[in-house]
Amino acid sequence: MSDPILENAFIESLARGLPRSPQQLNRLQEADAELVRIPGTTAVLALKTDTLVEEIETGLYRDPSLLGWMTVTVNASDLAAVGAEPFGLLLNETLPASVDPSFVAQLQGGIADACAAYGFAVLGGDTNFSPHMQLGAFAVGLIPDGKPVTRMGAHAGDRLFASGPLGIGGAFALATLQQGADGAAPPGNRPPYRPLARIREGVALRPHASSCMDSSDGVLPTLDQLSRLNGIGFRLDGPLDAILHPAAAASARASGIPPWMYLAGPHGEFELLFTVPPDRVAAFIASAETIDWRPLPIGVVTAEAGVTLPFGAEWRAVDTGKVRNLYPESEGNVSKYVAGLLEMHAVLSRGPAAAAVDVDRPDAAP
Amino acid sequence: MSDPILENAFIESLARGLPRSPQQLNRLQEADAELVRIPGTTAVLALKTDTLVEEIETGLYRDPSLLGWMTVTVNASDLAAVGAEPFGLLLNETLPASVDPSFVAQLQGGIADACAAYGFAVLGGDTNFSPHMQLGAFAVGLIPDGKPVTRMGAHAGDRLFASGPLGIGGAFALATLQQGADGAAPPGNRPPYRPLARIREGVALRPHASSCMDSSDGVLPTLDQLSRLNGIGFRLDGPLDAILHPAAAASARASGIPPWMYLAGPHGEFELLFTVPPDRVAAFIASAETIDWRPLPIGVVTAEAGVTLPFGAEWRAVDTGKVRNLYPESEGNVSKYVAGLLEMHAVLSRGPAAAAVDVDRPDAAP
Repeated sequence: MSDPILENAFIESLARGLPRSPQQLNRLQEADAELVRIPGTTAVLALKTDTLVEEIETGLYRDPSLLGWMTVTVNASDLAAVGAEPFGLLLNETLPASVDPSFVAQLQGGIADACAAYGFAVLGGDTNFSPHMQLGAFAVGLIPDGKPVTRMGAHAGDRLFASGPLGIGGAFALATLQQGADGAAPPGNRPPYRPLARIREGVALRPHASSCMDSSDGVLPTLDQLSRLNGIGFRLDGPLDAILHPAAAASARASGIPPWMYLAGPHGEFELLFTVPPDRVAAFIASAETIDWRPLPIGVVTAEAGVTLPFGAEWRAVDTGKVRNLYPESEGNVSKYVAGLLEMHAVLSRGPAAAAVDVDRPDAAP
Repeated sequence: MSDPILENAFIESLARGLPRSPQQLNRLQEADAELVRIPGTTAVLALKTDTLVEEIETGLYRDPSLLGWMTVTVNASDLAAVGAEPFGLLLNETLPASVDPSFVAQLQGGIADACAAYGFAVLGGDTNFSPHMQLGAFAVGLIPDGKPVTRMGAHAGDRLFASGPLGIGGAFALATLQQGADGAAPPGNRPPYRPLARIREGVALRPHASSCMDSSDGVLPTLDQLSRLNGIGFRLDGPLDAILHPAAAASARASGIPPWMYLAGPHGEFELLFTVPPDRVAAFIASAETIDWRPLPIGVVTAEAGVTLPFGAEWRAVDTGKVRNLYPESEGNVSKYVAGLLEMHAVLSRGPAAAAVDVDRPDAAP
């Protein structure tokens, strides 16, 4: 792995010196939610807090109903990624004192819709007033058998799956923020966006998957993080069009943006990316069918570090560490960020093909 | 009760329409922390989230070490008020991207100090960047026997206790914000402030108390809330000086502010205010002695609604609903808030004495 990740380094500096729990199953970064054994039981609690801050300040989320939906979804998705069942939610809302009652009604309606979709009860919360709106939640999940799936455990040869088609989070974000920044993107290029956290799918994959992480930060950052944590790499199957969400593919055609850039983050689609050992694939697929879910086989785990993507008929190794640092280094300037990605694209397009890797396509049929 | 409470009404409007949990023991407002039975066990989880927003924006908390300490303490105190044992904490930090590393080090140091003081492990958290700093946490506590103390259960004749001397939160806030607003308060009037959440005391009082609430919003708002929820009232013993923190009493003498105003909130001292049935007082005091704690007997629960305070040699009924609404109605203007309290003080000072209530002083000795 080339570049150290700026965000990881800052989080590690914050955590240094804070007391840890002997009952916690995961260390820093090792799972999407914090996993703690309930004393005197075999059950494990999955705990997560996530707050919409940058998404509000940049104008990425504006519709109050979407804001409510995402306040719940960003937290639910991390419970899904450890295979937890929803137990309860606490809300953390900072609202302007002058907030319009109809805005609040739509916001709370979005929250209620998402809770109903995932089976969350709202246990309580905290409300504050400030001109600077922030919306967060704290989600509690249960893993009755005490056996979560974490980010740790991917091995070379494991199959890589996505819970659904990819790229819509990136397509939505680029279109919305470019519109905001310079009005350049025609409204027609912006796909609809209301992702569904993959709670049922997380429960179904938990007994089979060797590792799992949600793509809230985008597909390439997610694969980069899994790659660093497990000391492995990923090679995605081609063609890329086969794993793109149709609306993202349409947006790419309309805007001329190379489709892989929709996988670059930092805003993702809240699908689950997970690995399954070859000898568990058939049982996993059978289990997925019982909930009418068709997981998308998208690649394979490689012994070599790094992420290799299909570019046309060839494969290229993408510097995913550089991709992840591009946005923080652009300091919120979306045009600068896009220019950085396009520069990488130019190099990748004329660069040498990645070394051939002898991999079978995953055997998706039982 | 005269005035409806603006904050309560807003919270009720937010909660309307959100799904509730059949496993939750408390309804809205009925406990300082949310109480949920863990399926398949007798144990109860106590869950709380609280964020420092107004405290930061008004300049009430500035010192980074105090900010870290209070981020943990505001949440720990609500766990204390239900008698829970600390289990774990998640942090929710929104920091300016340009934040000074030494500020972060002191902030995290304050968090680590508070966690060590209360026995909290930090399980994880969420970090965001924004010019508008907000610091929150999510605290998880355990009640192994599944029998929490809540705000519900006070009866006429019960004794009213405080976990420690009162008024320092009000004295600190008035001195700090008046200084900020118009530079009027001499620095010497500002008492030191670093409250200790009463975790050990909460565990000790849990088997004995009929109701409990922390005084994070000030003593009178806390008594007002307990009074509304239980359909009872409170009569405080005189003289007020006997229950004031020495530093708050000194601040009152230096500034000429009537001491009861330090009990008016909206910023409190994070003590526990709780009621104990007369026949449990001796056992409670004996139990408190085993942890070297001397709870302060401060009054009695009355059948009549309302809160009655000693004014010199007489008692006066204070309109605590009006007191609670004064700050939100002042829209952050501290001078206006103080003027409102002083106006109430003028009326109370010349008003008729409250009806005599025949109460015994609590029998604090076993």
